[in-house]
Amino acid sequence: MHKQMFDPVCRELEMVEGNLNRNINSGVDILNQASIHLAKAGGKRLRPAFALLAARFFLDNLEQVIPMATALELTHLATLVHDDVIDNSVLRRGTYTVKYQWGNRVSINAGNYIFARALALSASYQRRDILDVLAQASMRICEGEIYQMMSSYNVDVGLKNYLRRIERKTALLISVSCKLGAMIGGAQAAQIRALELYGYYLGMAFQVTDDILDFVADEEVLGKPTGSDIKQGVITLPAIYALKHSPDKEELRHLLSSPDLCSAQSERILDLVLSSDGVDYAYWVTEHYARKARKELDNLPDQPVKSTLYEIADFISAREY
Amino acid sequence: MHKQMFDPVCRELEMVEGNLNRNINSGVDILNQASIHLAKAGGKRLRPAFALLAARFFLDNLEQVIPMATALELTHLATLVHDDVIDNSVLRRGTYTVKYQWGNRVSINAGNYIFARALALSASYQRRDILDVLAQASMRICEGEIYQMMSSYNVDVGLKNYLRRIERKTALLISVSCKLGAMIGGAQAAQIRALELYGYYLGMAFQVTDDILDFVADEEVLGKPTGSDIKQGVITLPAIYALKHSPDKEELRHLLSSPDLCSAQSERILDLVLSSDGVDYAYWVTEHYARKARKELDNLPDQPVKSTLYEIADFISAREY
Repeated sequence: MHKQMFDPVCRELEMVEGNLNRNINSGVDILNQASIHLAKAGGKRLRPAFALLAARFFLDNLEQVIPMATALELTHLATLVHDDVIDNSVLRRGTYTVKYQWGNRVSINAGNYIFARALALSASYQRRDILDVLAQASMRICEGEIYQMMSSYNVDVGLKNYLRRIERKTALLISVSCKLGAMIGGAQAAQIRALELYGYYLGMAFQVTDDILDFVADEEVLGKPTGSDIKQGVITLPAIYALKHSPDKEELRHLLSSPDLCSAQSERILDLVLSSDGVDYAYWVTEHYARKARKELDNLPDQPVKSTLYEIADFISAREY
Repeated sequence: MHKQMFDPVCRELEMVEGNLNRNINSGVDILNQASIHLAKAGGKRLRPAFALLAARFFLDNLEQVIPMATALELTHLATLVHDDVIDNSVLRRGTYTVKYQWGNRVSINAGNYIFARALALSASYQRRDILDVLAQASMRICEGEIYQMMSSYNVDVGLKNYLRRIERKTALLISVSCKLGAMIGGAQAAQIRALELYGYYLGMAFQVTDDILDFVADEEVLGKPTGSDIKQGVITLPAIYALKHSPDKEELRHLLSSPDLCSAQSERILDLVLSSDGVDYAYWVTEHYARKARKELDNLPDQPVKSTLYEIADFISAREY
């Protein structure tokens, strides 16, 4: 995502950034260090941006959206730090993970601490509907992690399983970000729903793109080694396509179903997937979701921010990463 | 704690028990299994009981306290399942841990899932003050985990460090349980404070007793091996006393500061602590806190439940475990 796309809310995003650091002020220094390290490593502030952009349709002054935008990023960061424990990751976005630097106890507690902070911020709205949206999303994200686990090294997973996984992993929280921005902005039910769906489709497109990049991008762009998913047995869309349509699908099945081979033969697996049309197919899926996202915008008021949301949908399907 | 002490709220505790199982109904079966396993293993429902007992001063019908009582137990269970990941525990209360049976990914996500459930239940009160109490307590509990980590194998930790650790580990959530019960019951500020302090002092006494039991109780009573704390380098009150007053304190310092020796020589460490007056001193501290807890009850209305709370304080300091 180009940073300029968030120009309509760039001032507010700076306030969120300040809040992220201010809000992590535990009396325990190691928790502060770990949390600030995490906040610095974690990148694009997509979730706050979408909450703010959604609210922009209905509000000139976005001040009241800032706590929720901050809470959404904190919720995201909390899942990242727990993911790094689960995956035993060394690197995230090119820097060492909290898990690698401080270990399991600090990482698990830093995640819980950050999530409790998010909760305190969300509570300030005194709205049950807002807290319910956040609580339900958190539960479903946890479910997604389990789906992912159960699908690892499973060469029989299909498109439906994949879509459910990326829904929980990414689309849900982006969808909720748009929804909460609209709710706080005082939007009508149909507008809230349109923005929720926009976020959902965009999040789906975004994660498919991310999964494509794991096959095609340089290590430098990714901040982690190319083929990380494959090495961990996470079978994403390009591989699912190849497992069905590649002339070498039997070899691919054999390799992908074994943890040892996924790790040792990841180069060969990457070659097999890349020589199928899997990446092309995944790009097509991205375009499909981006189109659906665009369509939801028809139901929204004609505000300048609308063109920004169109741009984001176009960019995500433009194969320009 | 004798189960009969909770008689004034036993019907309500059964409702909480039903809720604990009903509330864990994820679409992902493995999360249900893990959560139900955890709920079944975890014992005394102290936190719901204290919330209900505190509310009993002010309410005849405790129906409105049930969701919060459930949320408090879920919050407690969430910390237990994460603790078992951190400590790599095999047993809890005599049954295999979720961590041992299902691994890190399921355990971390089950904890997060359960905590999000607690949040959804707490949100139903639509009261910012209630959510703030819960969020702040969650943050401080995380800090306590870090204090505990920083104190492991550290033979220079003193009484103050120990008290801060057990405050975060146990007293805080019991204190908050009493406080929230009183808040939901519509108590006045001074009454809320008295019950908060009662819970705090009682929680302190309770954890000191628990730490004593790790030295003196049978494996069967504990549901885990005697000396578990020592083996993990967790230096609790009897050991802190022995490190200061035992004639063999130099040997004890040497043993307790080494992870290898804590594990290999735990029998010798237990002997050294038991032959000091450490356990007696710890019992004295328990009595001190139980007295302070009793005193807070003076500020509360004369209701039948008051005698129950006196009994609990008496029992905890009666060396009858």
